[in-house]
Amino acid sequence: MTFETQFRGNAARTEALLTKLLSSETRADEITRPENLAEAMRHGVLNGGKRLRPFLVIETASLLNGDAEVALRVGAALECLHCYSLVHDDLPAMDNDDLRRGQPTVHRKFDEATAILAGDSLLTLAFDIIAAPETHLPDDRKAALVLALARAAGIGGMAGGQALDLAAEKTAPDEAGIITLQAMKTGALIRFACEAGAIIAGSDDVERHRLRNFGEKIGLAFQLADDLLDLTSDAATMGKATGKDAGRSKGTLVALRGAEWATARLRELVKEATDLLALYGDRADILIETAKFVAERKN
Amino acid sequence: MTFETQFRGNAARTEALLTKLLSSETRADEITRPENLAEAMRHGVLNGGKRLRPFLVIETASLLNGDAEVALRVGAALECLHCYSLVHDDLPAMDNDDLRRGQPTVHRKFDEATAILAGDSLLTLAFDIIAAPETHLPDDRKAALVLALARAAGIGGMAGGQALDLAAEKTAPDEAGIITLQAMKTGALIRFACEAGAIIAGSDDVERHRLRNFGEKIGLAFQLADDLLDLTSDAATMGKATGKDAGRSKGTLVALRGAEWATARLRELVKEATDLLALYGDRADILIETAKFVAERKN
Repeated sequence: MTFETQFRGNAARTEALLTKLLSSETRADEITRPENLAEAMRHGVLNGGKRLRPFLVIETASLLNGDAEVALRVGAALECLHCYSLVHDDLPAMDNDDLRRGQPTVHRKFDEATAILAGDSLLTLAFDIIAAPETHLPDDRKAALVLALARAAGIGGMAGGQALDLAAEKTAPDEAGIITLQAMKTGALIRFACEAGAIIAGSDDVERHRLRNFGEKIGLAFQLADDLLDLTSDAATMGKATGKDAGRSKGTLVALRGAEWATARLRELVKEATDLLALYGDRADILIETAKFVAERKN
Repeated sequence: MTFETQFRGNAARTEALLTKLLSSETRADEITRPENLAEAMRHGVLNGGKRLRPFLVIETASLLNGDAEVALRVGAALECLHCYSLVHDDLPAMDNDDLRRGQPTVHRKFDEATAILAGDSLLTLAFDIIAAPETHLPDDRKAALVLALARAAGIGGMAGGQALDLAAEKTAPDEAGIITLQAMKTGALIRFACEAGAIIAGSDDVERHRLRNFGEKIGLAFQLADDLLDLTSDAATMGKATGKDAGRSKGTLVALRGAEWATARLRELVKEATDLLALYGDRADILIETAKFVAERKN
């Protein structure tokens, strides 16, 4: 099976599960799900995303013989959390974006209050999905997933990275500052995606650390490729405003070091990621393809 | 020990733990905690709140011989989540409040973006605290707490209730609608607080259900007392804008049924709450005192 077929297949399975998880049907323990809010949550999630983070959860779990159904659910949980961050980042008080993947952002299609609540509810839902009885995983692994996800998403991770990003609009960070910002804002969730596979599989600390390191490389490559794309792509390909990071004087490593350096660094990162998984032989091929895909992606 | 001494003692212990949990000190697994965001989180939490929800966690756990240190941590987690909801509810796009307990709200003292991120980070931190190794609880109870908290807080609980509250500004709900709104917006977390005590103690389903029902009564009494206070109190006592619910034509049961009915209903709720805990004898005195305190509170 080619990488692309596998990638699309996982995305379709993730999409189907997300559609189910975000339905308006209430559970026995609920009074109601306000329809407007449920719609806003679906608009924020079911928007044709690439589902890269779920893919990483599913494929790292598969490499380590973790349960595939559990990995699908944890991937969906992670995607809900990722999408909450996009909904909140798009808000007028943050990046003030009108479009996301060519569609109106949640606060444009609904309103600001609903977008804030949709984000809050998606963040909450991520933990619901992991802890739910339908996630057939020993409780110690559930607790480990909740903890690792909360730390990847909170002040020491993604949300902290977004705070640094806002501060960077006022005072341009130096190279070390950019690296910290990116490791937190985009790196933390991608790293968690790979670590999650190891947690699901019940890996020992060494293996968990290895997959975490692999995720770190992927995260760095993802951000570097994004910065390169932002420099070269146009709004039609990206489906969102581009060139904006430069316009807002937010520093990127590409702006600081140049496109040539970035391209070489991307090659290096793919090599480092590949080396980390060498001991798994060709069973790791799909993840190594993913590293290349992330480094070379065109949108 | 009097009820008031006990209440204040628990609040002080909760406050001390929250101060520690919200410090700027980074853990080994973190790069940094952006100072501005950390300050905003502290401003949203360490503001002299009554700490009613932690008190309920601590005292229900104590009644059932649950671990006191664990209950303190779970209470602190719940308070972080409660405070996130206040920070977001105060935002310009929501209730647009400038004051909270006589202090500027988070978005007034910092800015809107920081308030959104501080709320997000507090919500995330709640799950971090429960799942953390410092919470010495069997993993099945951690998973149960995460699930119950996520459901109390999400679209089927508090966040959904806030969405209904926003909708109520446009179309006044009928009595059934008000009851649903309040059960979700304020009831769900208070109910969770009492259920959490039973989860911490490892109660069977019957006991867990009993404490959950007790929490439901307390939640109803809390909201009814709030609506009564809103009618009679002035801004000086409450430390926030009052009479606003009426001004915005949000229906309350007090507006619909009158103060006399509400006072009688409060007496009824205290009786029902008391009856639920009768089998524990005088060991439940402190919780019964709490029901009375909630129903009779003056601010």
